[in-house]
Amino acid sequence: KKKKRRRNDLIVVASLVDRMPNLAGLCRTCEIFNASQLAVYSLKVIKDPIFTGISVASEKWMPMIEVPEDDVASFLKSKKEEGYVLCGLEQTTTSATLGEFEFPEKCVLLLGKERQGVPANLLQMLDQTIEIPQYGITRSLNVHVSGAICIYEYTKQMQWRQQAPAAVLPGSP
Amino acid sequence: KKKKRRRNDLIVVASLVDRMPNLAGLCRTCEIFNASQLAVYSLKVIKDPIFTGISVASEKWMPMIEVPEDDVASFLKSKKEEGYVLCGLEQTTTSATLGEFEFPEKCVLLLGKERQGVPANLLQMLDQTIEIPQYGITRSLNVHVSGAICIYEYTKQMQWRQQAPAAVLPGSP
Repeated sequence: KKKKRRRNDLIVVASLVDRMPNLAGLCRTCEIFNASQLAVYSLKVIKDPIFTGISVASEKWMPMIEVPEDDVASFLKSKKEEGYVLCGLEQTTTSATLGEFEFPEKCVLLLGKERQGVPANLLQMLDQTIEIPQYGITRSLNVHVSGAICIYEYTKQMQWRQQAPAAVLPGSP
Repeated sequence: KKKKRRRNDLIVVASLVDRMPNLAGLCRTCEIFNASQLAVYSLKVIKDPIFTGISVASEKWMPMIEVPEDDVASFLKSKKEEGYVLCGLEQTTTSATLGEFEFPEKCVLLLGKERQGVPANLLQMLDQTIEIPQYGITRSLNVHVSGAICIYEYTKQMQWRQQAPAAVLPGSP
């Protein structure tokens, strides 16, 4: 039972997310998709009853780290030095399309603030921004949902590579 | 401005879902991914302040239909007669894996109840069950999130087919 669990090399940075249902949902989703770490602005969130009502105890199994908003830049910098590729979920003029973009194995995924998205000072640190193609009139997907879709896509690609290293993504250049 | 919007031939049946945040989230997600219809157990849900607080007005643009739980079986039957393939998000011994499964263009996606999943009488009506590969200790993804991931995957495949009709999914048999 104590066997070491092999996790994907995906670090999800949710330090800019402040709504409790989104943080709790992301914890549940990260645990299920086997991410290696989830950063939140404060570890006190896991004591919040709204959090625990939604996380269904996933925080017990999901490695979480406290990275306050002001420390996100230095956290990203240190991860870059450790060989991680810094990705962010944000619509920019140079965003890659989720589903076409081939994820790096060592990946940091930065999620934006609920309304404003990723602030400019962090945006310029990223190696890649990624966007989910959206077709509606409604502004944008909820941050937990967009994060979950992105984490699903990353996880699927890692599975494919293990199964068939030469697999080519349709739609990739 | 009155130009007819071309929607994907995806009908999402959320009639078994009863938590308001999940229903509102699904409405927002369906609108963004251009599904053609969302079935809910009662259209009264769109008057609920919890619903409107989360749906961000997406219900104004998303065609919704009332299908009470007791009417789901006959609704599925009529859609089958109209040429839709009946898919359900549920783990069964014959589930296809999301990401490998090639979606039919005319697709009904039945979502399960928050705890119990899809009841047996509806399960046997389905042409295909689909599951999302999950790796965690936590029981399962939230129904809005798993539905959203499935709708994203469907939408992506429809896009691929429009762009490159002969595209082959990696991992598909």
